Formats: sequence, structure tokens, C-alpha cells
Amino acid sequence: MNRDRILELLRSVERGDVDANDAFEKLAHYPFLDTPHARLDTHRGLRQGQAEVIFGPGKTVAQIVEIVAALATTGEPALVTRVEPDIADQVLAELPAGDYDAVARVLWYGPAEVSITGKGTIAVVTAGTADLPVAAEAAAVARRLGNKVELLQDVGVAGVHRLLASVELLRAARVLIVVAGMEGALPSVVGGLVDKPVIAVPTSVGYGASLGGLAALLGMLTSCASNVTVVNIDNGFGAANVASLINRL
Amino acid sequence: MNRDRILELLRSVERGDVDANDAFEKLAHYPFLDTPHARLDTHRGLRQGQAEVIFGPGKTVAQIVEIVAALATTGEPALVTRVEPDIADQVLAELPAGDYDAVARVLWYGPAEVSITGKGTIAVVTAGTADLPVAAEAAAVARRLGNKVELLQDVGVAGVHRLLASVELLRAARVLIVVAGMEGALPSVVGGLVDKPVIAVPTSVGYGASLGGLAALLGMLTSCASNVTVVNIDNGFGAANVASLINRL
Amino acid sequence: MNRDRILELLRSVERGDVDANDAFEKLAHYPFLDTPHARLDTHRGLRQGQAEVIFGPGKTVAQIVEIVAALATTGEPALVTRVEPDIADQVLAELPAGDYDAVARVLWYGPAEVSITGKGTIAVVTAGTADLPVAAEAAAVARRLGNKVELLQDVGVAGVHRLLASVELLRAARVLIVVAGMEGALPSVVGGLVDKPVIAVPTSVGYGASLGGLAALLGMLTSCASNVTVVNIDNGFGAANVASLINRL
Amino acid sequence: MNRDRILELLRSVERGDVDANDAFEKLAHYPFLDTPHARLDTHRGLRQGQAEVIFGPGKTVAQIVEIVAALATTGEPALVTRVEPDIADQVLAELPAGDYDAVARVLWYGPAEVSITGKGTIAVVTAGTADLPVAAEAAAVARRLGNKVELLQDVGVAGVHRLLASVELLRAARVLIVVAGMEGALPSVVGGLVDKPVIAVPTSVGYGASLGGLAALLGMLTSCASNVTVVNIDNGFGAANVASLINRL
Amino acid sequence: MNRDRILELLRSVERGDVDANDAFEKLAHYPFLDTPHARLDTHRGLRQGQAEVIFGPGKTVAQIVEIVAALATTGEPALVTRVEPDIADQVLAELPAGDYDAVARVLWYGPAEVSITGKGTIAVVTAGTADLPVAAEAAAVARRLGNKVELLQDVGVAGVHRLLASVELLRAARVLIVVAGMEGALPSVVGGLVDKPVIAVPTSVGYGASLGGLAALLGMLTSCASNVTVVNIDNGFGAANVASLINRL
Amino acid sequence: MNRDRILELLRSVERGDVDANDAFEKLAHYPFLDTPHARLDTHRGLRQGQAEVIFGPGKTVAQIVEIVAALATTGEPALVTRVEPDIADQVLAELPAGDYDAVARVLWYGPAEVSITGKGTIAVVTAGTADLPVAAEAAAVARRLGNKVELLQDVGVAGVHRLLASVELLRAARVLIVVAGMEGALPSVVGGLVDKPVIAVPTSVGYGASLGGLAALLGMLTSCASNVTVVNIDNGFGAANVASLINRL
Amino acid sequence: MNRDRILELLRSVERGDVDANDAFEKLAHYPFLDTPHARLDTHRGLRQGQAEVIFGPGKTVAQIVEIVAALATTGEPALVTRVEPDIADQVLAELPAGDYDAVARVLWYGPAEVSITGKGTIAVVTAGTADLPVAAEAAAVARRLGNKVELLQDVGVAGVHRLLASVELLRAARVLIVVAGMEGALPSVVGGLVDKPVIAVPTSVGYGASLGGLAALLGMLTSCASNVTVVNIDNGFGAANVASLINRL
Amino acid sequence: MNRDRILELLRSVERGDVDANDAFEKLAHYPFLDTPHARLDTHRGLRQGQAEVIFGPGKTVAQIVEIVAALATTGEPALVTRVEPDIADQVLAELPAGDYDAVARVLWYGPAEVSITGKGTIAVVTAGTADLPVAAEAAAVARRLGNKVELLQDVGVAGVHRLLASVELLRAARVLIVVAGMEGALPSVVGGLVDKPVIAVPTSVGYGASLGGLAALLGMLTSCASNVTVVNIDNGFGAANVASLINRL
Repeated sequence: MNRDRILELLRSVERGDVDANDAFEKLAHYPFLDTPHARLDTHRGLRQGQAEVIFGPGKTVAQIVEIVAALATTGEPALVTRVEPDIADQVLAELPAGDYDAVARVLWYGPAEVSITGKGTIAVVTAGTADLPVAAEAAAVARRLGNKVELLQDVGVAGVHRLLASVELLRAARVLIVVAGMEGALPSVVGGLVDKPVIAVPTSVGYGASLGGLAALLGMLTSCASNVTVVNIDNGFGAANVASLINRL
Repeated sequence: MNRDRILELLRSVERGDVDANDAFEKLAHYPFLDTPHARLDTHRGLRQGQAEVIFGPGKTVAQIVEIVAALATTGEPALVTRVEPDIADQVLAELPAGDYDAVARVLWYGPAEVSITGKGTIAVVTAGTADLPVAAEAAAVARRLGNKVELLQDVGVAGVHRLLASVELLRAARVLIVVAGMEGALPSVVGGLVDKPVIAVPTSVGYGASLGGLAALLGMLTSCASNVTVVNIDNGFGAANVASLINRL
Repeated sequence: MNRDRILELLRSVERGDVDANDAFEKLAHYPFLDTPHARLDTHRGLRQGQAEVIFGPGKTVAQIVEIVAALATTGEPALVTRVEPDIADQVLAELPAGDYDAVARVLWYGPAEVSITGKGTIAVVTAGTADLPVAAEAAAVARRLGNKVELLQDVGVAGVHRLLASVELLRAARVLIVVAGMEGALPSVVGGLVDKPVIAVPTSVGYGASLGGLAALLGMLTSCASNVTVVNIDNGFGAANVASLINRL
Repeated sequence: MNRDRILELLRSVERGDVDANDAFEKLAHYPFLDTPHARLDTHRGLRQGQAEVIFGPGKTVAQIVEIVAALATTGEPALVTRVEPDIADQVLAELPAGDYDAVARVLWYGPAEVSITGKGTIAVVTAGTADLPVAAEAAAVARRLGNKVELLQDVGVAGVHRLLASVELLRAARVLIVVAGMEGALPSVVGGLVDKPVIAVPTSVGYGASLGGLAALLGMLTSCASNVTVVNIDNGFGAANVASLINRL
Repeated sequence: MNRDRILELLRSVERGDVDANDAFEKLAHYPFLDTPHARLDTHRGLRQGQAEVIFGPGKTVAQIVEIVAALATTGEPALVTRVEPDIADQVLAELPAGDYDAVARVLWYGPAEVSITGKGTIAVVTAGTADLPVAAEAAAVARRLGNKVELLQDVGVAGVHRLLASVELLRAARVLIVVAGMEGALPSVVGGLVDKPVIAVPTSVGYGASLGGLAALLGMLTSCASNVTVVNIDNGFGAANVASLINRL
Repeated sequence: MNRDRILELLRSVERGDVDANDAFEKLAHYPFLDTPHARLDTHRGLRQGQAEVIFGPGKTVAQIVEIVAALATTGEPALVTRVEPDIADQVLAELPAGDYDAVARVLWYGPAEVSITGKGTIAVVTAGTADLPVAAEAAAVARRLGNKVELLQDVGVAGVHRLLASVELLRAARVLIVVAGMEGALPSVVGGLVDKPVIAVPTSVGYGASLGGLAALLGMLTSCASNVTVVNIDNGFGAANVASLINRL
Repeated sequence: MNRDRILELLRSVERGDVDANDAFEKLAHYPFLDTPHARLDTHRGLRQGQAEVIFGPGKTVAQIVEIVAALATTGEPALVTRVEPDIADQVLAELPAGDYDAVARVLWYGPAEVSITGKGTIAVVTAGTADLPVAAEAAAVARRLGNKVELLQDVGVAGVHRLLASVELLRAARVLIVVAGMEGALPSVVGGLVDKPVIAVPTSVGYGASLGGLAALLGMLTSCASNVTVVNIDNGFGAANVASLINRL
Repeated sequence: MNRDRILELLRSVERGDVDANDAFEKLAHYPFLDTPHARLDTHRGLRQGQAEVIFGPGKTVAQIVEIVAALATTGEPALVTRVEPDIADQVLAELPAGDYDAVARVLWYGPAEVSITGKGTIAVVTAGTADLPVAAEAAAVARRLGNKVELLQDVGVAGVHRLLASVELLRAARVLIVVAGMEGALPSVVGGLVDKPVIAVPTSVGYGASLGGLAALLGMLTSCASNVTVVNIDNGFGAANVASLINRL
């Protein structure tokens, strides 16, 4: 239950459209909602203005089903990230109303068209084919959180003319998410081309000295472009969440 | 020379207040301005919307003086960061118009009162006395870039009631910078209390397993609060720069 | 054979209830008991006051069966940790008297109800669903060692109000075990809320910069709460063992 | 102001010995006490049952003097750790009532004889001459917190007979602090000899592969003795604080 | 072909027992022997005085068979290390004259009884059941290289009395190999009990902060016992080879 | 003594210009030349085609003087790298014929004008003012080894238009040396702009997550441009040496 | 499409052999060629003078087929690296014109005999059987890029006489690629024997302290031979690409 | 007091040369000897057969003087390692009978000529001038422990012909100590040339990727020569001690 829905509920009571008892029932789930396996922090919607996003890894099918079903009782959409195809199949067998994006590995329970509440466009820029799953996760999450998203892919620093060909698109964005593995240099170059906040996402793509994404992570943290901040390796969701918060300011 | 100053210049020409030749002279410094030791990227102001900030370490007094003087010829304010007191004294002996903040180790050449162009308040939150220099740098830079800043200091996670006593202040900010060394847990707790973007700055404060700030850095990158992004260790300037960009959206 | 059982044996001899020869037979297993694969340190019970706990990983089914059976001949209960379900099934097929806890992955041979010998309550606090196996191991071991245990789960630092809602429970404990992955900040916050020893258990939950639990480990070691000590990553057993020792003081 | 002092104050009011207004004055410093440079968490004494200990490094002489003086107004003793001799001299020049221990690098403002409130003895065991400063810090802090302390020094694992010669002393302790650099093996050996909690303190003593204490730290975390917990490198204070908390249970 | 066999050959020629042409044929394989996949350094036997030992991992069954067969043509025994059971089965199907030790994972082609050429006993000491495969490899290799070996297992530092019970055996050895995972403290304790060279073998046994054997490795390198040298993690073969060289001095 | 000088010597003998005895005297210094502190590998000139370069750090003034003087007796020029100004002053006091470059920290004993033997131009490209000393070392060494050098400085990836403005210069080079600290992204961008070998030199410039140059090093090793190879951190000399070898092919 | 093919095309137009319209069609693919999954940088051929090489890992069979087919439409050969046998089988089922090298794991679409355009020989030197796949990749790529290649295998530093036996072959090469795992010492020794550029390729061969190739990587970066540069772990392709560029100078 | 001196003492009693009371006085110092700052393990001489060696760093002049003086009362020679010149001067001012070796940084109190008790020669081999202090320490300690020592210096792997020129000397040694920084490859090459145990000593010589000696350490641990064992970085003393133990077998 997010801030808007709560305000809407309270205004319905104010207008006499909703009975105080019914409103109470809905709010009674707050401040948190205990399920057998998780104490859902539904107040976070209130505190942070956005819906619950469930991190899939380490959760069983049964746990995911339980959490999604519990959120459904509050009228809340649910977004489950990092869901492998076989898990998605099993969850959808139980709760068929969902929509699964196999590239982004994201499972969505909510309206097919999310209304746009972000003020501008979020650009998601990615260096190589191999980084696509993380970029796709970022794009999918940003869209589900109510933002217009432009995805610009396969524009690496070793072919800088391809990136420069898209400079208008980059400069038109209000926030940028730049996804890169290997040496992680793309956020520095993009950061130098725009005057907006750039959120860098290192990926675990690479081998040897990429150390599972650490090389890209360190490169982004030491970027010479001063409009770059960084999230954890492969954390497309986190980048999208912050970009969405910024885009609603 | 930032975007506003260039637009102002062009409008002066438009209005007939400034002669095209004079305007040309001023613009001629662009796209970059060569000094003997540095090719100043004065276009960055145009591309990124903010003035040149000079990173002090590794530069000699002569180099700092040269750069500040070059910027002065374009009418640009200059902000030099990480200036130790003895260096500041020597630069001020050459260019006495500056203002030195000894806690933030920041040297400023420009108007005493910078006009506020940011839309909201930037909160700078810090865990301990030892983190103060980094927090002070972040606050000083944010102010010089035209933002209203609130500094909340010495509110560590091991005394969480102190933090909760300031929750109104935290929630009133449009962007938050959270500075912490040791285990770097403060951004997670603050991130859970607000629905705004939080920029986490790990500091090199600590000993032993803090590994010069790496423990805090890793902690912030793996934060369970999904509204947190991270900059390099001790990078108060970078955090302030991004916060300022966000605050102008 | 632990200290109590030895004392009891000696007092039985003192009272004439047990024949010296029989007592000798029992004690003859000391100071250690050789099986084909392990020289069991049964004196450790005497020296450290607690029963033998067998670390499961790296041992074959045959080795576990052999050790449990050997301990059974001394009348000693046995606790085997980190036992995967398929291993447990095979051991139970040989020695059906055991009790397997699939969440905690602990296999127990001994009385169904262990008598409470600890003086107070051990609180086991955990940040997320994914940390539950480690927390469950800690709780199961602590109970089998004779302690009253309270398990408080899913109270992360990014939703600090959930933690504060349980502050009475926390402050009522005599010792606390706090289990957390990711940034490992929970022990710092809990440590600041209580005046009792806190044993922090980092978990390998997380990805990317969590480095298999190293981020949480470093965070806990550099905790700003000075009542926190740390055990190895995922070492729920070790935390429970020390908590139990403290709780018997 | 610790718990005992507050209870005592309230009982004085109860008995009519102290005027409610005066008591209020004293309590008014709570829950925290702002000085220009630090918001002292004087409630921590209430929450954690022990006095404020000030971590010296990174604080100026002026800041230390200010904090000690502020605590003095509440009648609280103050213990400052990691104070180098020249800093101590300067603080003592301002506040001459203190007592400086040059080996432990600890500065104490309080009664010469602290009354013993711990229930048993804390043994502080150390491997080599070079580890002595950390062991001395642990011993000094433990004593100032009201504990009987036995210091057993220079008993390394490569001369295990020296350690065994002191096994009675080890087994007589209620809690043990074991300080070791290099390979950090001493806590494992000591842990195997006693049935009490052992707090291991790695030191930064060593060179090369000791990696500034990391080798000892990792060794202690992976100890095969299951009654060992670990604190940060060189953190004699932290070990003493936890040992004192345990000793008061 | 080792030094002894070459000398023997030359003496046979000297004595007229062997025809120079035949001797030439045998020596013609030197200085190295090319097989399709490997240039065998058969001179190493001459230079280092011991037979070729083949490191199994990364080699196909075909490659192992080829190398063993090539050595067989020179009358040389062959020892293949780190051979998993399924590989061993396949090699033995091709070359059935071998002898496979499943615990040590060593495959031997040569005489059932190797004559003892080492001057004293090599003691192989190990801390836990889990370290046994590495210790068994060390013992098997040392025996095959012509040494008398004593294997002392399951004597960890946390039960130091078990180790002390075997001190005579330890002191009777001419060289010692000490195998340990976890904190790797055993070589320090053993090193302090004897006046002979101790070769420490860290194992990858452990979890979390054991970092795949790095904790034990660092611990052994920083050992306070000055008669300890170290080989690579799990390198039972290397330890045995050096011990054998020393034992032949 | 390099290959050319040796050939020249032999041809002089061939032509009768030089007496065989004298030639022998000169060659007699070969294959190496013992000084009290170093066995100079003067054959390396023969084997590798270039003069001896002396790595300054860790050598005393006396040692440097001794080596330079010994080379002088063979008619060989000498290049000493990483010479701090005070050391240079002392060496020059003894051997005044040298030429010291304070930015490159290089001391040269040889002809003022080295004849150009490299076939094309070596471009030395650098990202920031702080990287200049390493770039200057590379440029100075390359020049002294007989190459035409172009130094392009202060062209970082966050201002990619500055780099593109110099693309002709980059593409005109036969070999490129790219020097960068921080995230080390410059070689990737330069590598994508040219079809020549690029030698990347990470520098130790940066702080925090730059880890003394490791971030740049890892970034360069994982570069997505496939014409990049890497040398050690700050190793301007090594890069110049390889570039010179390539430029003579 | 590489530089030669473009020049040839333009000259055909010049000579009237090709119609401008047809030429335009061919060039129209430039500067890049979008396929559904990748924006192929076919200009890189123009900028860097060599054909597109596709890095196999992380790409699906469908993606590899799509890219190879797209390149085929431009008449370009394609080289796919790191292709496991099962993937190769599937790609070849779709596009049977390819040639798969199972040791080098390289899939080639192009002429069976590539014409030699490199000026000299590239020597590929390898230390052990286990390093062969990486060395084979380097050799295969270098050959496909138009170079004469000599492969010298199984010449490790611990049998230095084997290496010296091949010194003529080494010194005859124009560029050398040296592939080594474990301690990575081979490039240093080879580097000392030749006066040509040596490209060192660390491999992930080894165990324990080899840290997945990091030990070899660090060893090569700190090589005392100053003609050595380094590429990423297992990056046989990268080494071959740079060697080929050098060999065409 | 070492084993020989004790045996000699006991035999003097046996022969009647020494009074039992006097002998008792001498032995009474055993098993250890307490000084105010250190419990000297004089039994170690008995257990390990060699005299006490004092590790200098971290000890004050007063402590060194005290320990040396205490040993002197037992008639024991003393060897203090890692003594910087200024410390040596101060100790010698108090105890002038010592002999200081400034290169090896070793201070010796004992007979000028130590009688040779080792059976063969210990070769100390070193790669570069910068490694000399560690090699000199190893040589000095080995000599003081009664061994014949050959020091072969400045024979690096990049000039392998220099090493081969000394192969007779290498093969004549009974034990070898090989000291190397940078990539640490020398022990592998030396190990391949001899059939004796090689003790490798990594040094902290190098910069950048040498990581303070870690690169050399890892290289030596993963050496492909199987007669190599390793000691800690810069641990010349430890290598000499083990070599001496081996040389007395």
C-alpha cells in the first residue's frame, strides 16, 4: 500500500465514500503484515512512496506465492525480481494473473499499463549484449514504478562514436542508469556528456581480472565524472528504484 | 563558466547590452582553456550545469594559483577541495580574495553569499565526530553550489534514539547525504526512514577490519535499503555534486 | 560425557549406587575415544561443560553413523549440524532414534525435552527471510544445549520501527545472537538498545559486493556498538555454543 | 551516568535525601548532552549499564578536554583510550586530575580505586611482548569497569608448556580475553583448555603475510574451538567491555 | 629414470653386464621424452633424484594413459596424484597394473613394496577428519618415494592434550608434515614441540572466513614457530616431495 | 653496450680500424660486469638491443654512482629512473655530466641528442595533471631510447570531446602509451579509436576505492578494447621500453 | 569489413570495376550494423584494421548464429572464441560452413587458408599441458588474423634446459606470446632471452594460492624483464590480437 | 642454552668436573626465565636445538638490552634480528661486546667464530640488489647458527645465463635459500636445477602489483618446482633457521 493509496483511502473517508470501519480494516494491516515466513514492511510504501518489491533469490516458490497473495489482499501490486524461468512457471501455476519478463527475470502482478508518475525520462544505457539482463531488469522495474524509460544498448567505450551518435537521447533524460561489466568505464564517459545524475550499475560480466564484477565496481567508484553514484554489482533493481525516486522529485 | 552565465551573456548580446566582439572574447575560451599545467574543461560547466571544482591533492601551490586565476579571467567562481591548511595559506598569500574553511578543507573564490538555486534542502547526516571533515566538505560544497543545507551530526546507529529524534528533519529533506565510517550502517537506517534518494559516503575512519574505509563501502553497497547509492571513500565532494544536480531537477 | 554426567557418576559411586568397576568402564572411554575415523575428544565435555557437537560437512554418512553410535555407548546425546536432507535421511535409516530439523539442518540424538540449565533467555534476532537457516541453527543448538530461546525474525535495519516494537523482548534477554547478511548492520543497532553481550553472526546471504558474507563480517567487526563480538560467517552453531556458555555463568 | 548512579539518585529522592529539583537538574542532561563537537550519548550508560568510554584517535586535545569536562559535570568518570603520550600530556595540562597508563595508552578520570562489581575474574592472556599494549589496554579497561583482572603474558603456542603451566589460572577465570598477533592461534589453544567464553583480540603485530592483523583475525574467526568469539584488530577496549558485561551477569 | 637407475646402468656398462648400445637406447630417451601431449622432463629424475610424479587435474584419461605408458618404457614407476575415482577406473581399465588409493586419490604404477631409502621417519600430522585426504596424499606419496611414514590424525589444537600424548612420536620423526585447515594453528604448536623441520600444508577445509584455505595459509606463514615452512593449499604431494628430499640428506 | 655498438666494434676490427686486442678488452667486460653491489647484465643490451636502464629506488647514492661509472667505462649511456631530487643532486655532485628531468624523475648520462632509431612516433596520452609524472617518465625514457614522442596530456574520459579533438594525432602514432589513474578507462576509449597497439599504464593516483592503483589496473586488464596490453602500476619505464622495442620492428 | 577490403572496394570503383551504387550498398552497412541483439561495430575493422571477433560466452546459440550470418552478408569472415563443443555443434547445425578447433575452442567462418599478412613469426610459448587450451586459442586466432605462428609447448621454468634448447626458435620470432599459469614465471625467463616484445597471458590453471590465475597475473605484472606486457587471465584472443597488430607494423 | 651446552654440562657433572650444585644453578633458569618484559623460552634451545634469536621490531632498546643481558647470564649467545642502525648504536652503548652487521641488520653477542656444526653448505641465492638485506640476514643467521654459507647475488631470472653460470655452486649446496621480490620466479628456476630442498623467501621489494611482497609470495607458493617450500615475506631469519635444522640432519 503506497502513500497515494493511503491518502486516497483517507480522502474517501473524508468524502464519506468509504465507511470508517472498512477503512480501518484496510489500514489494520499496518504497520506491518505478518505472514508465516516474513514480516512484510507494508509501511515502507508509506515511508518511501513506492510499492513492495520482492527479491526472489533464496525464497521458495511457496514463500513467493504467500507474499504475493498477502500483498494482493491489500490491493497492492507486487514485483518479484531475479526469478529464474522454472521458478516463474511454478509461481504462475499457482497465481496465474502475473506477467513474466524472461530477459529481465521479473515477475509482475498488477495492471498491464502502469500510469506514468515520473516527471521525465529515465535512460538505461548498456555496454554489451552480456549486460542486457541487468539493464533489462533496471528498465522493467523503472517502468513498473511508473516511469517512461529509454533503453540504449550495446554502446561500449571502445566504440565511442556509437555512443556519441546517441548523445541527444542521453541529454534528454532526467536521470540515467548506466550498466557495464568488464572495466566499467561507460558511466565515466556518459557522465561527462550529461548534466544529470548518473547511477552506475557494475555487472558480474567478464572473467579473470574482472573478479566477478569488482573491477567494474571499483572503476565506477573512482570515476573521474563527478555526477556518478554507484549501486551493488548486478543491482538493476536498486538503480531503478533510486532513479524512480529522483524522477518523482 | 556555467550554463546560466552563458545564457545571460547571449541574452546581453540579444538585448544589445554587450558587443558581439566582447562576447566572442569571453566565449573564445571555449571549449577548453589551456593553462601550462592543465587543459581546463570549462565546457563542463555548459554540459553539466555547474562550475569547475578543483581537486587539490597532487597539485602544487603554483598549479592551484594558476587554475584559480585562469577561471577568474572568465568570471567564474572556483572551489578547491582537500586543501590542507599550509597549502591554503600559501594560495591565499598569492590570491587573497579566497575564503578557507579549515574543517571542510575547502577554499572558495566567489561571492560570500551564493544565491540558492536548489529547490529543496539537502540533509547531511554523520555518524561520529571523526567523520566530520568529510561531512563538512559535503555541506560546504553543496552550499557553494547553491543549495540550502542542514547538517545533522553525531547520530550513530548504536544510539538509534538520537537519530529518531531528528526524523522530521530527515523527512523534510529533498536529498540526503549520509556520511559514515566503521561499519557504515547509518545509510541503511536513514534510508529506511525516508522516501528520498540517499547518497552514502563511506569514510576511511576506523582501524583494523575497517580496511581504510572498505568495510563501510561494502556495507553501503550491500545496504538492504533500496534508496541508497554510493560514492567513493571520503568523497564528500562527489556526494554534494550529485545531490546538487538532483536538487535542481 | 559432560561434567554433570561425570559428577553424577562419581556421586553414584560415593552413594554406593554404582559399582566402582562399572564406573570405571564408563570412565575408561576417557580421555578420548578412538573410532576408525576420528579420535573423539570426549574430555571436551569435561573441560568445556557441554556435549559433543559434530560438524556434518565433509563427513560421510558412515562416519556420522559411527560417531553418533560411539557417543551413544557413553550415554551422551549427539547433535550433528549442517546436515542436508538427503544425508539426514540416510543417517536416520541407520539410526532411526534421531530428530531432524530441516530448516536448521540439525540432527539430534537425545531426549525430546532437554532440561533447561541456562539461567536466562537467549534471544536470536534475524534480519531477513534468507538468514533464517543460520538463525534457526543457532536457535536449535541453543535449545539442545539447555537454554530458553526467543526467535525474533525479519527485523531489518531499513525498517527500524519493527525492531523498536520488539525492544522489550530484546532487553529481557540475558544474551543475544544477531544474525544478518548484506551490510550486517543489525548487531550495531541491537547492540545500542541493550546492555547485554551481543554475538553477531554474519551470513553469506547477499550478492556482488557482499563477497560471500565478508561485507557483513567486516561490518560487524567494526561495529560502533561496543558490546558486540563476532563469529565466523554462517556459524550459527558457534554463536549458540558461546551464548549457552555465557547463559550458564 | 550509569544505571546504578541513576537508581541511587532516584532512591535518594525516595528517601527524601535529595530534593526533586536537584535531581531534575542532574537528570536534565538526559537523554543526551550536546557539546559543541559531540552529542554525548549519556543514555548509553542507562541502556548498557556502563560509563562512557571515549575513543581517542581522531579527536583533538580540545575535543577530549571538552568531553571529559562535560562528563565531569554529571559526576561521571571518564576513560579515554588510545591516547598517545604527547596528547596525554596536553590533556593533563588542562585537566590535571587524570591518571595516565603509558603502556595501555589509557587516560582515566575517576576514583583511584574502582569498586569491584564483576562477579569473577577476567583473565587477559597474551602471546608476545609486542602484543602487550593491546593486552594492557584490555586489562586497564576491564579494571576501570570494576573487574578483578589477571594478566598472563608471553605464553605463545610455540611454547605450549608455558601455557599449560598456567592452566589453573586460566580455568579459574570467569571470562577470558586472549590477545595474539601473527597467526593468532592462541585463542584456539586456550579455548580448548577452558569451558568459559573466550574473547579473541587479533593484533596488528607481525609483518608480511600477517597483513596488518588480518591473518590473526581470520585465524581466530575460523578457530576450531567453539567457545571463541572475536573483536576487531587491536580492539582491547571492546574485548574488555564485553568481558565486563559478561562478568556482571 | 632417477639418478640411482642411471648410475646403476652406467655401472652395468662398466662391469660389462650391459652392452653400450643397449645402454645408449635407454639413455636416448634423455634429456626429455616427447609424447604427443607433453614433453616429459625425464632429466628431472637425474637433476632432482626422484621419479616423475604426474599431477592429474586438467589431464584427460588419454593423456594420463599416454604418459604412464611412456614412463613404463623407461622402466620408471609412475605416481599420478589427485585422481578422482571415476578417472582412476578408466585409467585402470587401460593399464590394469596400477594400484589406486581412494582416500589419498593417488594412482601408483610400480613395485608393491618400495624399498626404504629415506634415513628416518616422516611424521604426517593432521588436525581433523576433513583434512584426511590431503594428509593421506602426503603419506602415500612419501611412502612411494621410499620413506617410512607415521600418520597421526585428528589431533587438533583445541584439544592440545591429545597432541601432547603423542609427543614421543613427534620427536622421533626426522621431518614432519603438518596438515591443517581452519585457522591452521597446528604447525605452530607442533613446531614448538620438536627441533626438526616442519612442513605445513594448509587445506581448503573450512567455510566463511577460511576463504578456501587462505586463512590457514596466512596463519602458517606467520607462525611464531621458526622451524616451519609452507607449501600451497592442499599440496600434500609437494610437502611429501620436499620431506623425502630432506629425509635422504 | 648494445647490439649496434658491438656490431660496430666488430666491423671496426674487420676494417682494421681497431686492434683485436683492444676490441677484446672492450668485449672482455662481457657477458656481465661485476661491481661490488651488482652484477650488471651488460649482455642484456646484446640480447634485447637496448642500453641498461637502472631502477633507482632502493639503491643508495653510492650504488647509483658506482653503476653509472661502470657503464661509462664501456662507453654506454645510462638512464636512471625514479630518482628523487635530493638523490639526483647527490649523484650529480659526484658525476656532474648527467641531465636530470625533475618531472619525470629521470637522470640521464649520455648524448644530449639521442639519434632517432624508432620508425614512427610513440604517442604518450594522459588523463590528468596528477598522472603527469608517470607519463613524463614514459616520454623521457622513450626519447632516450631513440624515439620520436608526442605527449598529449589532460584528456580524460569524462570530457571525451577533448580526446576526440586530438584523434588525428592518436591515429598518426605507431604505438601508443596511455597513462591513467582512478578508473583507468582512457586506454579503452583510445584503444577503440586506433588500430595500433596500446600499452596501458595504471597509476597510483586516486584515493579510497582506487586502492593504490589496483582499480585502474583491473580496469585496464578487463578492457573491452582488444588492442590493449598492460604493465605494472606507475611503470612508465616499462611501457616506454616495450613501445620502443615495437617501434624498432 | 576490414581496411583492406574497403580500400579494395574503393579502388574497384576507381577502376570502374564496381558500380558506385553497388559499392554504396556494401558500405551502407557502416558505421554499424544493427542486429536484434547487437549493434555490431563493423567500423572497428576500419579503425583497427582487423575483422570482427565474437566473444562466445554469455551468448546464446541464436545470437551467435545471427551475428555470424550478419557478418557473412558483408563478406566478412567471423571468428567466434570460447565456444564449448556442444554450442559449436548447435551453431554448425545451423551454419555448416564453419570450422571448429576443439582444443582452442574457436569456431571459424572464412577461407580455409588465410593469406599471411604479418611480417614475421609469432611464437606462442606455453608452460604446461594444462595451459594448452589458452595457448591454442592464441595460436588459432593469430593464424586466422594472417600470421605465421610457431607453437612451443610444455617448456616450464622448472626445467629451464628445455626452454634453452629452443632459444633459436624464440629469438627468431618477431613477437612472442607466453602463456603460463601457477607462478607465471615463464614470461620473465623468455623475456630475458629475446629482444622482442613479449605478451604474457596468465592462465587460471592452478589451485589454492594461484587464486584463479591472480598469482600468475601479479607475477607477470611485476616481471623483472622489461619487455613484457600483460593481458587478462586466460585471454589468449587478446594476446593474439595485439601480437597480430604488432606483426603488421 | 642449547642442547649441546646442556649435554656438555651434564657430562661435566658425570665426569666430576662440575659440582652438582653449580650445575643446578645453571639449569635452574629452566624451563623459562622471567624478565620484567618477557618470559624467555630458554627451553626452546633444548627442544629445538638452537639458541634464542630475538626479533627486534617492536622492542625498545631497554627491552633488547634486558633480554641480551639475561641470556648472557646463562652463557648463551644472542642474535638480535631486524635492528636498525640507530637502535644498534644505543644497544651497543649499553652492551659493547656485540657485533653489528649493517646490511643484514643483525646484532650478535657471542664468539667471533662460530664453530661449524652443519654438515654441508647452505647456498643463499638472490635476484637483485634490492633483495640483498633479506639475503644478508639469511646468510648472517645461517652462519651464526654454525653453517658454511655461500652467497650468490644478483642472478635474476631475466638473465638466466648468469644463473646457469653458477649451477655447480648451486648443485654443491645441501640446502638452498632463494630470496626474490617482484614476481618471485627465481626459486622455481633454481628448484628445477637442483635435487635438494629449496626454501623460498619472498621480499617486499617491488611496487604496484607486487602488493608489498604478496605477488612474490603467491608465485612461490604456486611454484611448478616441487622441491620448494616458502616462509613469510622478508623472513630471512626463518629461512636460515630451517635451513640450519635441515643441514644438521
